[in-house]
Amino acid sequence: MSGTSNLIRLSVDMMGGDQGIEVTAPGLLDALSRYPDLICHAVGDPEQLHDALSASAPADRLIVVPSSEVVAMDEPPASALRFKKDSSMRVAINQLSEGRVSGCVSAGNTGALMATARFVLKTLPGIDRPAIIAVLPRSAGHVHMLDLGANVGSPPEVLFQFGLMGSSLVRTLEGAEAPTVGLLNVGSEEIKGSETIKAASEMLRNSDLNYVGYVEGDDIFNGEVDLIVCDGFEGNIALKTSEGLAQMLTKVIREEFTRSLFSKLAALIAKPVLRAFQARIDHRRYNGAMLLGLRGVVIKSHGGADRTAFSNAIGAARLAASKNLISQIESDLEATLALAD
Amino acid sequence: MSGTSNLIRLSVDMMGGDQGIEVTAPGLLDALSRYPDLICHAVGDPEQLHDALSASAPADRLIVVPSSEVVAMDEPPASALRFKKDSSMRVAINQLSEGRVSGCVSAGNTGALMATARFVLKTLPGIDRPAIIAVLPRSAGHVHMLDLGANVGSPPEVLFQFGLMGSSLVRTLEGAEAPTVGLLNVGSEEIKGSETIKAASEMLRNSDLNYVGYVEGDDIFNGEVDLIVCDGFEGNIALKTSEGLAQMLTKVIREEFTRSLFSKLAALIAKPVLRAFQARIDHRRYNGAMLLGLRGVVIKSHGGADRTAFSNAIGAARLAASKNLISQIESDLEATLALAD
Repeated sequence: MSGTSNLIRLSVDMMGGDQGIEVTAPGLLDALSRYPDLICHAVGDPEQLHDALSASAPADRLIVVPSSEVVAMDEPPASALRFKKDSSMRVAINQLSEGRVSGCVSAGNTGALMATARFVLKTLPGIDRPAIIAVLPRSAGHVHMLDLGANVGSPPEVLFQFGLMGSSLVRTLEGAEAPTVGLLNVGSEEIKGSETIKAASEMLRNSDLNYVGYVEGDDIFNGEVDLIVCDGFEGNIALKTSEGLAQMLTKVIREEFTRSLFSKLAALIAKPVLRAFQARIDHRRYNGAMLLGLRGVVIKSHGGADRTAFSNAIGAARLAASKNLISQIESDLEATLALAD
Repeated sequence: MSGTSNLIRLSVDMMGGDQGIEVTAPGLLDALSRYPDLICHAVGDPEQLHDALSASAPADRLIVVPSSEVVAMDEPPASALRFKKDSSMRVAINQLSEGRVSGCVSAGNTGALMATARFVLKTLPGIDRPAIIAVLPRSAGHVHMLDLGANVGSPPEVLFQFGLMGSSLVRTLEGAEAPTVGLLNVGSEEIKGSETIKAASEMLRNSDLNYVGYVEGDDIFNGEVDLIVCDGFEGNIALKTSEGLAQMLTKVIREEFTRSLFSKLAALIAKPVLRAFQARIDHRRYNGAMLLGLRGVVIKSHGGADRTAFSNAIGAARLAASKNLISQIESDLEATLALAD
């Protein structure tokens, strides 16, 4: 991909995220030490980057790419796109479009990242709108789900494209021969499905995909399907609802385990078990959503990611780049959509 | 309401739910012993009801109303409506429309219950579509949310009506002077709001309601607003996603606490704490969703409710009936919609 075989080059927006370099620098160092095949193009303020990285980074696998601006976490996408042409986010994406790296990571604001990446990289042939895809945990295994919030009111053909891209991604990244695909819907007979959902279901059923039909909200965390397709409005609400519920449960369990002397003692004894529980559902393990449907691997880290979570997002970009995900999706799309003609 | 002052009469569909009388009978007996002001019209197969209830029920507060049919849990609403005119569900609703009781409870299938209740009772003046409203827990307090799945693709004026009815309900049942109302939306700037959501927000903002604007998925369990308004598609997905996540977490925590001898010991010691945790978030406490917008109190119990959960659903109907909820909503709607002219 990047000249030297077996090495993976990624650009990393070092100024994005709620805490910027404070988190991205240690996260990047973690990733560099975890993946010996990784070369990082760290984009941001050169002086700050020098201070944060030079002491401990392997000099042959770190390239500092200077940029003079930062996209604010609450900056409107249009303003970032128009006025921040030398932002760390924009320069990191440029590195990708210029072929210097084979993937890009940012913890910056989602709207700006999507708008910029779409403008600079363009969508893949046959894809109308890029989607946000992420991995969510289950008691055993996990599920991929898209769109998690890039598009509101997706028409049937766009939902169908989500299915095509998502299925190609699961096959490529997980080696699943024919990943099962479900379409998110509501269960009550009376209201089952809008016209859009019904039409999308029809398209998925008539395709080569291993489409199993409708799934409901409880199938996200408790079901068996490999990929769940939905509009970004529902996807975002499902994702945020889960985040809120997980936070609430964590808070209540913490309150109960600190309520009395006895419960504190119980907490002490149960600590290894509670920790094992936490490790299994640790959202940091699943950090790194992909903006799927672009001509390049763009990974969005959670803005509030910590060091471990951020290094996992870099790991997600590395995996996608090393598997040549974009070419895989492109050739799958070509085959399915008969764009080859 | 029912002749004798201070007594609350409710009709109960005894044949509905996944386990029918096995659960509804003990649940009804629990409710009768918990609420001395409660009189129940138990609707169903008279012989079975006699066997299940006669030994322990207070004879002066239990009336068996015979019915010869049962609506199956997977029966299409239209078929239940057309062909099951003597079902326990239908007869229980008839009791309400005939003024014999001031509320009705069923654990039967949601679609059939909604279709039948709507057909028999009709909607309140100014209300186009009834909605499903329920209470969801927070670490402190709770939130009311509607619609949880009765309507797909609600136009702005219907979402606005949900806000009116829901606000009136929270005020009446909780004594909150001016409940805060939020409209469920997605956060990303780029995609914030469909045209429908924007128009509904405008209507809510221009009303007398204490409307605070958009809320996101994480505000359901972690926010502060008293009432969340949304279309039934998103509401149902948010609700089911939460159910699935809660089940998954319960499963993982159980697995971790039974993994080894040590973790089993830890579980033993932590048991009182885990139990306190469970009690605080026990979904059975929140059983009993209301079909709101009808000319009568109709409470839907979860089909899989156990005895405790079912008696809580009866408790929810009793509360609404005792507060004259329907007249309250009617007069609030009259005032707001100026239907009095």
